[in-house]
Amino acid sequence: MIMSRIEAPRDEHTGNLTDRLLAGLPPEAVLTDPDVTASYAHDMASFCPAGSPAVVVLPRTVEQVQHVLRTATELRVPVVPQGARTGLSGGANATEGCVVLSLTRMDRILEISPVDRIAVVEPGVVNATLSRAVEEHGLYYPPDPSSWEMCTIGGNIGTASGGLCCVKYGVTAEYVLGLDVVLADGRLLSTGRRTAKGVAGYDLTRLFVGSEGSLGIVVRAVLALRPKPPRQLVLAAEFASAADACDAVCRIMEGGHVPSLLELMDRTTVKAVNDLAHMGLPETTEALLLAAFDTPDPAADLAAVAAVCEAAGATQVVPAEDAAESEMLLQARRLSLTALEAVKGTTMIDDVCVPRSRLGAMLEGVERIAAAYGLTIGVCAHAGDGNTHPTVCFDARDPEESRRARESFDEIMALGLELGGTITGEHGVGVLKKEWLAREIGPVGVEMQRAVKQVFDPLGILNPGKLF
Amino acid sequence: MIMSRIEAPRDEHTGNLTDRLLAGLPPEAVLTDPDVTASYAHDMASFCPAGSPAVVVLPRTVEQVQHVLRTATELRVPVVPQGARTGLSGGANATEGCVVLSLTRMDRILEISPVDRIAVVEPGVVNATLSRAVEEHGLYYPPDPSSWEMCTIGGNIGTASGGLCCVKYGVTAEYVLGLDVVLADGRLLSTGRRTAKGVAGYDLTRLFVGSEGSLGIVVRAVLALRPKPPRQLVLAAEFASAADACDAVCRIMEGGHVPSLLELMDRTTVKAVNDLAHMGLPETTEALLLAAFDTPDPAADLAAVAAVCEAAGATQVVPAEDAAESEMLLQARRLSLTALEAVKGTTMIDDVCVPRSRLGAMLEGVERIAAAYGLTIGVCAHAGDGNTHPTVCFDARDPEESRRARESFDEIMALGLELGGTITGEHGVGVLKKEWLAREIGPVGVEMQRAVKQVFDPLGILNPGKLF
Repeated sequence: MIMSRIEAPRDEHTGNLTDRLLAGLPPEAVLTDPDVTASYAHDMASFCPAGSPAVVVLPRTVEQVQHVLRTATELRVPVVPQGARTGLSGGANATEGCVVLSLTRMDRILEISPVDRIAVVEPGVVNATLSRAVEEHGLYYPPDPSSWEMCTIGGNIGTASGGLCCVKYGVTAEYVLGLDVVLADGRLLSTGRRTAKGVAGYDLTRLFVGSEGSLGIVVRAVLALRPKPPRQLVLAAEFASAADACDAVCRIMEGGHVPSLLELMDRTTVKAVNDLAHMGLPETTEALLLAAFDTPDPAADLAAVAAVCEAAGATQVVPAEDAAESEMLLQARRLSLTALEAVKGTTMIDDVCVPRSRLGAMLEGVERIAAAYGLTIGVCAHAGDGNTHPTVCFDARDPEESRRARESFDEIMALGLELGGTITGEHGVGVLKKEWLAREIGPVGVEMQRAVKQVFDPLGILNPGKLF
Repeated sequence: MIMSRIEAPRDEHTGNLTDRLLAGLPPEAVLTDPDVTASYAHDMASFCPAGSPAVVVLPRTVEQVQHVLRTATELRVPVVPQGARTGLSGGANATEGCVVLSLTRMDRILEISPVDRIAVVEPGVVNATLSRAVEEHGLYYPPDPSSWEMCTIGGNIGTASGGLCCVKYGVTAEYVLGLDVVLADGRLLSTGRRTAKGVAGYDLTRLFVGSEGSLGIVVRAVLALRPKPPRQLVLAAEFASAADACDAVCRIMEGGHVPSLLELMDRTTVKAVNDLAHMGLPETTEALLLAAFDTPDPAADLAAVAAVCEAAGATQVVPAEDAAESEMLLQARRLSLTALEAVKGTTMIDDVCVPRSRLGAMLEGVERIAAAYGLTIGVCAHAGDGNTHPTVCFDARDPEESRRARESFDEIMALGLELGGTITGEHGVGVLKKEWLAREIGPVGVEMQRAVKQVFDPLGILNPGKLF
């Protein structure tokens, strides 16, 4: 890094910027080697442009983050905050000449309180690290995005991420009680509370959650925890059509059941997982439904749901016999996106959430779109939430197929809106869907959201080009 | 009303305002008789100034609300939105010469969907009406403020109200998925969604929840519902000191129990309830704890909590034998504020929420404050949430006692902040606590909140003089 500062050709602007950053950051926290900074250019989304960062900073303290923001404000340089860059919508992609602000080194768990059922953490704490740490205290931090072994709490807050748990436990937003946020000008704002309830003033906490780093930089979070529930037991139900599986989902929810997980994998996804990992899932099925309960008597609850599935036409219902079998089924579900990526080399993962009563119409529509575009589109879904991930498989080296992939991806969002849904249930807007945000929230919505952005970021330096 | 339009002396301004309002509202929706409009001047808070409304409007449609706001914007007249005026912080109090916008006639339940687990409602729907309506579909709308038989969903959204259910089910905010809001200039903004999840853009929905009508007028809400749980069973535990009762609360929560209710009544409150309603509560106790479970086996859960209470020094633990006995105990708790009001004729009800680990320190401090000011202060509390309602009893005809009441009320808020709490857990800021809001959220917080207000209400016509 020191070498790069001597050797790398830098224009005056970057030189000035780097020097100013180094005035408040230790040398090892400022990366300028272009080979290194290039590796911070983008997250895991396809089809999202990314620029080259001028510099990557890795602060360890709130004061250092404040210094970065003050410097960026003085020099009018864009700041792109990043966690683990596991995002799927380009929300963490660099813009040309920006400061990439990686929060990964602010990774301390500051407090875990079993009485108050809260944790206080820095943004760079990895989701799985927190989950395991609170488990030792008999507690549970539910949000579990597929990337939970890598993704950070700061990134989770930025996109209000979900996961498999949401059908019972909700998304990240439900677990953020209070935040410390460094504003664009470097000032520190504390929002929210560390109490169970609180209504003092506007809910700025929730305004920052899901704002994709465009309103301020989260440097500390007070998170709500729950008591650790009993281990969940999983059931797999096979259906002769996706429509039957969706009907079962509706009947389960209408019947008042509260599963801890209710996931759907379509035939394409099941086959892809088998091809990748030889897990022996039933290939003849058109749709596989996974349901789980973490209640005191999960076997009884699974039996009730098994009966509902059979009434909805399930061809076979297999409850897991034990925790190991349950874990195997979840493993298959978690492998879905990786497995679909192997089909043609590249995927575009959509994230359309519809009212669960429209889940059947959504899946039928996706099948129609796949046929019309001559593409393989596998669907896995957080079915209990109506949150589908239609995943377009394509060969990125084939421009014509890539074009069809992009178009079908857009058609899927249009379908979601038509069914009363949203273009993004948990992945965020980022770069990928910013043209679609306006279609969903309308002109008055865009105007008010832009005005809120203006309040917090009058110079437009915070993660520019995202969301709008 | 028509007579009042002829007889009541009106200045030119009010005349013009009324005429303009009548251009878009039917005559029966526009009240100008000063005797009638005066009855809309304030909510149920003590010590909160209120002005005289120029006019009260009672629209039935979104278009009529838009007309009211357009008119108010044109004429620069303040608009004070009101539900049932059961609020406890003066948030619905009229300002001099304002338009009171009562939403009570927009009281239709537009949709209840058991599959999607949502209800779509107008703001004037009474909480109890909605609760009973969804119950018929096997569903549950948890938020249950003490005033639930009278208060409206719009008012609940305005203050993000809580209730007895919050320890397990959270506050109103947790149940608002999407809103239609008439902005200050009369335009209609739709926020949020009707899906289980959604992260498209900033969370403006939550910004409106708890904003006390100062950012826009909610005219429609999509609410999340849960499956109706089993009927809860209640246990009463007596303690020889408030400290022991608070210790029991901490142990219960630390032990991973999930009660559907965990309430505390101190000796003063118990005595007041007995005096009012002769309910035969144990008068020798220093603190009464009520715990309930709505689980599949509530008796087993109550037995576990009974053991925790005994270990924490409970002098007697009495589980309710059946639903009727449970209901009687809840009735006693619900009567607390009314009973305390009867002690000296008037009360100031505080609403300080502290981390539950500090509940004991809070109660001890309140006792100290009561002694120092020579006042009776009864405490009932949503103990599981750390949300206390220290209720100052005083004779409003005695100016000196009234002064002491007001001062002790402020001391209680100072104590709450000192203990890491908030000045309001569920009642809101309104007029009553606006000087205290700044102390809680600090100068940067105030500046950002004011800037957000400016975005939505540039002319400052929406519920002015509240919050800030």
